[in-house]
Amino acid sequence: MPQLRKDPVIRRWVIIATERARRPGNFVTSQNVDFGNKKDCPFCHNTDPEIFAIRPQGSGSGDWQVKVAPSGTPILSIDTKFKRHGFGLYDVIKNYGAHEVVIETPEHIANMADLSQEQIRRVMEAYVSRFKDLEKDTNLQYVFVYKNYGLASGSRPIGHARSQIIASPVNPLRVKEKLAGAKKYYDYHERCLYCDMYRQELESKERLIRETEHFVAFSPFAPRFPFETIILPKKHCCDFADGVAGMEGDLALILKDILLRFKIGLDDPAYNYVIHTAPLRQKRKGAKWQTIEEDYHWHIEIMPRLAKAAGFEKGSGFYICAIPPEDTAEFLRKVDVHA
Amino acid sequence: MPQLRKDPVIRRWVIIATERARRPGNFVTSQNVDFGNKKDCPFCHNTDPEIFAIRPQGSGSGDWQVKVAPSGTPILSIDTKFKRHGFGLYDVIKNYGAHEVVIETPEHIANMADLSQEQIRRVMEAYVSRFKDLEKDTNLQYVFVYKNYGLASGSRPIGHARSQIIASPVNPLRVKEKLAGAKKYYDYHERCLYCDMYRQELESKERLIRETEHFVAFSPFAPRFPFETIILPKKHCCDFADGVAGMEGDLALILKDILLRFKIGLDDPAYNYVIHTAPLRQKRKGAKWQTIEEDYHWHIEIMPRLAKAAGFEKGSGFYICAIPPEDTAEFLRKVDVHA
Repeated sequence: MPQLRKDPVIRRWVIIATERARRPGNFVTSQNVDFGNKKDCPFCHNTDPEIFAIRPQGSGSGDWQVKVAPSGTPILSIDTKFKRHGFGLYDVIKNYGAHEVVIETPEHIANMADLSQEQIRRVMEAYVSRFKDLEKDTNLQYVFVYKNYGLASGSRPIGHARSQIIASPVNPLRVKEKLAGAKKYYDYHERCLYCDMYRQELESKERLIRETEHFVAFSPFAPRFPFETIILPKKHCCDFADGVAGMEGDLALILKDILLRFKIGLDDPAYNYVIHTAPLRQKRKGAKWQTIEEDYHWHIEIMPRLAKAAGFEKGSGFYICAIPPEDTAEFLRKVDVHA
Repeated sequence: MPQLRKDPVIRRWVIIATERARRPGNFVTSQNVDFGNKKDCPFCHNTDPEIFAIRPQGSGSGDWQVKVAPSGTPILSIDTKFKRHGFGLYDVIKNYGAHEVVIETPEHIANMADLSQEQIRRVMEAYVSRFKDLEKDTNLQYVFVYKNYGLASGSRPIGHARSQIIASPVNPLRVKEKLAGAKKYYDYHERCLYCDMYRQELESKERLIRETEHFVAFSPFAPRFPFETIILPKKHCCDFADGVAGMEGDLALILKDILLRFKIGLDDPAYNYVIHTAPLRQKRKGAKWQTIEEDYHWHIEIMPRLAKAAGFEKGSGFYICAIPPEDTAEFLRKVDVHA
C-alpha cells in the first residue's frame, strides 16, 4: 500500500510506492532511450477505461483525438480512504489521490513537438477539463500536470506522446516554497513577482527566447540546468485552468515552438515539463494564503535532460549550471524552427 | 567569470559556471562508469600545491597519507573579490569561495569502502582541519564537504578515492530549510529533532542499519531515494568539526561499514555523501539563529545512485521512492561485511 510520508525536518512529503516495489536486488540503472515498437505500444488504440476524451464533432466512441485514462501504474488512488495519522516524529497519509494519463494523440508519435498546434491545443483543453473536475474533491490540494519525453524511469520510455496528471492530498514542498516566495515579494512591493519578471525579461531581451500575443518564453536568470525554460502568461492569474481560458491556441503555439527549438537545436533531447499553478483550496475565501490571486502566477517550466546533476547539487540544493542562460537563450533564438 | 545567482522566487542560489562553459552544441549525456587508467590518474603522485596534508611522524614532504589541494576545476575562488549586487529583480555574487579536493590515499584505490578504518579516520581529520581554517574567513558562510564515487558529471569518474570541500559565501537553500525545520521543532518541543529521531529509530529498530558507540546509521522514514542512509552522532552538536572531536575513529568505523554494505549488497554502486553541519557565522552570539546550538545536529547523508528521478520529482519536489526504508534497512543489515 503506497504511503505519503513527511520528512520531519523540512516537512517534505514523499511517496513510498510499495506496490511498485522492486526487490532490493533488482534495480534499473541508466539505459539508452529506446522507444520500443509500435505494436507493443499501450497507447495506440488504447482500450483503457475513459475518464475524459476530446472527439471531433459527431464521431463515434472510437474516434478520440485526446484521451484521458487511469494510469497503468498508479501511485495515488481515489479508491483509498483518505486518512492521516502520525506516530512519534512522523506523519503518514494513505495514498489517496488521482493518477491519470493524457494520451495526446491516437497516432504513434513520440514527441509533442511533432503534433500540430491544433492537436496541442486539444491537449491543453483536456488538462483544463480534468482540473475543473478534480477540484471538486475537497480532499485534494494540488493538481500536478507534467510530461516526461524520452526519460527512462524504471521502465522503457514510451514512444507515444502523453502527459500525466497527479492530484495530491498534500501540497508539494517546492510548490509551498514558490507560493511563500511570491507572497513575500508581493507583501513588500505590492506587485506580482512574475509580472515584474516577464516585464524585466522583455525589456532586457538577453534571456528572451520567444514572445507571442499572450505568452513570454525565456531562460530564467538563475537556472538549475542548462536550457531550462519558463513560459509565462502575460495575463496575471494564479490558476492554470482559469488563466488559460481563451488562449489555449496561443499556448499551444509557443509550447510547440519551444519544443521544436529543443528538438532541432539540441538533437532531440529527452525533456520534461511541469505546469505550476495555485493549490486548489487556497483560492477560496478564508484560506491560508488569502492574497494568492494577487501574488501567484501560473507558468510552465520546461527542462531538457542533458547532463546529470552531481553530488554537490543533490546534497545541498546548490546547482552548478554549466552554461549561462544568456548563451542558451541566444542559441535557442537562433534555431530555425521552419527548417 | 562564474557567478552566484539567486532565484528571485524561492531565493535559491545557483552557480553559473561560465569558466566551465561548454558550447551549447557540446554536452555529455549519461555514460557507463569508466574509471580510466592508473597512469592517467591525476591523484596518484599528485604534485598540485598542498593546502594541507597528513603525514606519518618524521616523514619527508613526499610521504603524505591524505592531501588537500585546490580543485583542478574550481567553481569558486578565493582570488575573486567578494562583492554582491542586484539589478532589477535579481541578485548576483561573484564567485568568491574555496574549492578544494581531499585526496584520500596515495594509492590508486577508487572506493573509500576499501580504505582502512585508520585511513578513513585521517580523512575525517583532514576535513576538520580545513573547516577550522576556512571558518576564519568571515566572508564565508557555509563549508560543504561531499563525495561522489563512480558518478560521471561532465567528465570521466576518477578511479582514486577523493572528496571535495566547497566553502561558500551564501547558505544553500536546502541548508536553510533544514535549519528552519529543526528550529521550528525545537521551539515547540524544546528538544532537538535529531536527538528525538535517533532515539525513536533505536527503539523501533525497523529502519536501523548499524549502531556504534557514538553513531547510529538508519534509513530515513521519508526517503527520497531507495537506500538513502543517515549517520547521526548520538552526542548533540550543531557543528561537524566541533562535534566529531574524539570520535573520528568511530565515525570512520561506521562510515566504512555502511559503504561496504553498499558495495557488497548493491554490487558496487555509484554513491555520494554529504556532511550536513551548521553554517559558520550563526554559531556566534547575536547571529540570526541564536538557538542553533540547541536545535541543529550535524549528520551525514549517503545515497547510492540506483534509479533516475523522473520528471514528477524534478518539477514538484515530490519524490517517489520505489522501496520502503524498512525493506532497504533490513536488506543492508543482512549484508555480511566480513565476507
